[in-house]
Amino acid sequence: MSLTISIDAMGGDFGPKVTIPASLDCLKNNPDLTLILVGNEAVLEPLLTQELVDYSGRLSIQHASQCVEMHESPAKALKNKKDSSMRVAINLVRDGRADACVSAGNTGALMATARFVLKMIPGIDRPAIISTLPSIHGHTHVLDLGANVDCTAEHLFQFAVMGNELVKAVEGIDNPRVGLLNIGEEDMKGNEQVKSAAKLLENSTLNYIGYVEGDSLNAGSVKVDLIVADGFVGNVALKSIEGAAKMIGFALKSAFSKNYLTKLVGFIAYPVLRSFKQRIDPRLYNGASFLGLRGLVIKSHGGADVLAFKTAIQLAEVEVKKDVIRKISEQVEKTLALRNNA
Amino acid sequence: MSLTISIDAMGGDFGPKVTIPASLDCLKNNPDLTLILVGNEAVLEPLLTQELVDYSGRLSIQHASQCVEMHESPAKALKNKKDSSMRVAINLVRDGRADACVSAGNTGALMATARFVLKMIPGIDRPAIISTLPSIHGHTHVLDLGANVDCTAEHLFQFAVMGNELVKAVEGIDNPRVGLLNIGEEDMKGNEQVKSAAKLLENSTLNYIGYVEGDSLNAGSVKVDLIVADGFVGNVALKSIEGAAKMIGFALKSAFSKNYLTKLVGFIAYPVLRSFKQRIDPRLYNGASFLGLRGLVIKSHGGADVLAFKTAIQLAEVEVKKDVIRKISEQVEKTLALRNNA
Repeated sequence: MSLTISIDAMGGDFGPKVTIPASLDCLKNNPDLTLILVGNEAVLEPLLTQELVDYSGRLSIQHASQCVEMHESPAKALKNKKDSSMRVAINLVRDGRADACVSAGNTGALMATARFVLKMIPGIDRPAIISTLPSIHGHTHVLDLGANVDCTAEHLFQFAVMGNELVKAVEGIDNPRVGLLNIGEEDMKGNEQVKSAAKLLENSTLNYIGYVEGDSLNAGSVKVDLIVADGFVGNVALKSIEGAAKMIGFALKSAFSKNYLTKLVGFIAYPVLRSFKQRIDPRLYNGASFLGLRGLVIKSHGGADVLAFKTAIQLAEVEVKKDVIRKISEQVEKTLALRNNA
Repeated sequence: MSLTISIDAMGGDFGPKVTIPASLDCLKNNPDLTLILVGNEAVLEPLLTQELVDYSGRLSIQHASQCVEMHESPAKALKNKKDSSMRVAINLVRDGRADACVSAGNTGALMATARFVLKMIPGIDRPAIISTLPSIHGHTHVLDLGANVDCTAEHLFQFAVMGNELVKAVEGIDNPRVGLLNIGEEDMKGNEQVKSAAKLLENSTLNYIGYVEGDSLNAGSVKVDLIVADGFVGNVALKSIEGAAKMIGFALKSAFSKNYLTKLVGFIAYPVLRSFKQRIDPRLYNGASFLGLRGLVIKSHGGADVLAFKTAIQLAEVEVKKDVIRKISEQVEKTLALRNNA
């Protein structure tokens, strides 16, 4: 199946230096893939003279005269950057010229622009950000990772319905195990939103397994396929995990760099340490999907390198192939119909 | 300076098996320390016949006929377990017979009982739980770790004032760097409580450095001495870090157990891996203090082993020596006076 993805080539901390090699790698790996690199023609074209010939028909440049800065406010980007690489890449999805868009640009601006351009799926109040974390059971999908603060129970329920469809499609499983992030597993624990969301989930057709605690993201006592949280909590959890991994990596490195002997041991242990590192390499988990929009937008980490950005493009490829947005829209419609008939 | 600590000897997953050896170790290490082990005399006395003689005058048993179960509801424990080891240990603090109490029992019951027995410091609305995490900059104190969900800005501000005094006293520094946990560093980020709390902190005498993200708990770009959060968010962050550490440990172990060769490498690297593990050993960070009460209560992890429980007792020793509760009470009074005069 052929698919087309638009790439915000100017986005992220490194712009074309990262987005171009990652894009070319993906074109090489998937002969069904077509990419439209969006950005300043004068910058992009000289970097791609040969490749535009080699991948003729599968690689093109779409000019966009502006760039959204990494710390620009979403409102300003929306108002003043109508010809930004980010906005034009999303326009291509709206116009049906691309099946998905990938950007490493500023999250707030990307979300605001995507929402403005693509509009929401009817029945969904707010978009949510979903991503995947490695876990001792394989991996865990988590949403919302920061699009929404102060979610109501209804919002959390909508996140669960959308996330459930994504996990079903991407993982190819029928009844993903859905957990609600809380500060204890007992019924009495938690704030009002979480308690009310639990009731909505218990009465739904989802395979709701109950409350889970923060450790379930990476290493719960049981496997959870999807964890639902308010965006504030989800974002803090994600960043806390990033910090913990960084600190542990730092401590491991220091232990092996202490003196000549430990350095020698580190040299001997290098292949094992490398295979360990690869297993939990965050670059292999890069890419978060915006759910709730009428089009597929994948957000890459701003600091992504080539491997990480490639992972984000590949995530877009999978979600396009699995027709995630259509499945979510249909499920949301069904859920609404069920509720209206109840 | 001599000090007396009451130990809930029956609390935690392992009860006396852990609390007794940890207590005896602490008595050995600190000749100024007196311990009162609270629990069932019939269970404790046979385990301590020789030690009661050896540490005569510094070790005693206070009988308590009941135990609070690890999953008992706080309300039930409060109502039905008036002679529990936990309650009697806290009573000793209230009656001035102990300077602090240490328990590995059920957090909810311990908090409810401590609050009921000891009462709040005037001017503080809610108690908070504070603990310490290892960081690449040394370590970070964090509160609230789960005593409160749905905190107002005023609650967050009160947590900051209390935590600041604890950090000053325990770390011996004048102006701890205080950060507010949020999902971004820009002013516009966050929910209403956090934004209003930021204003209160900006206008305070604290050394408030602004918003910090989840990665600052272990590995922020700058050092933060104290991080303030709502109990829901703080608890999820703490548990997420525990899960991440567990998953990384698991991946490291698997990498070294893959085959004979990797096992041999693991054997060679063992001393380095051990020194790495010691550096981030969570047992050396065990012990959380309840702040806001008119007495010192330290909560140990329920699953604490001897080393971990010992760390919690030692934390109580430090906080008693540094007179943390008196300093917090005085500072709260000053802050209130300042505000009433403003």
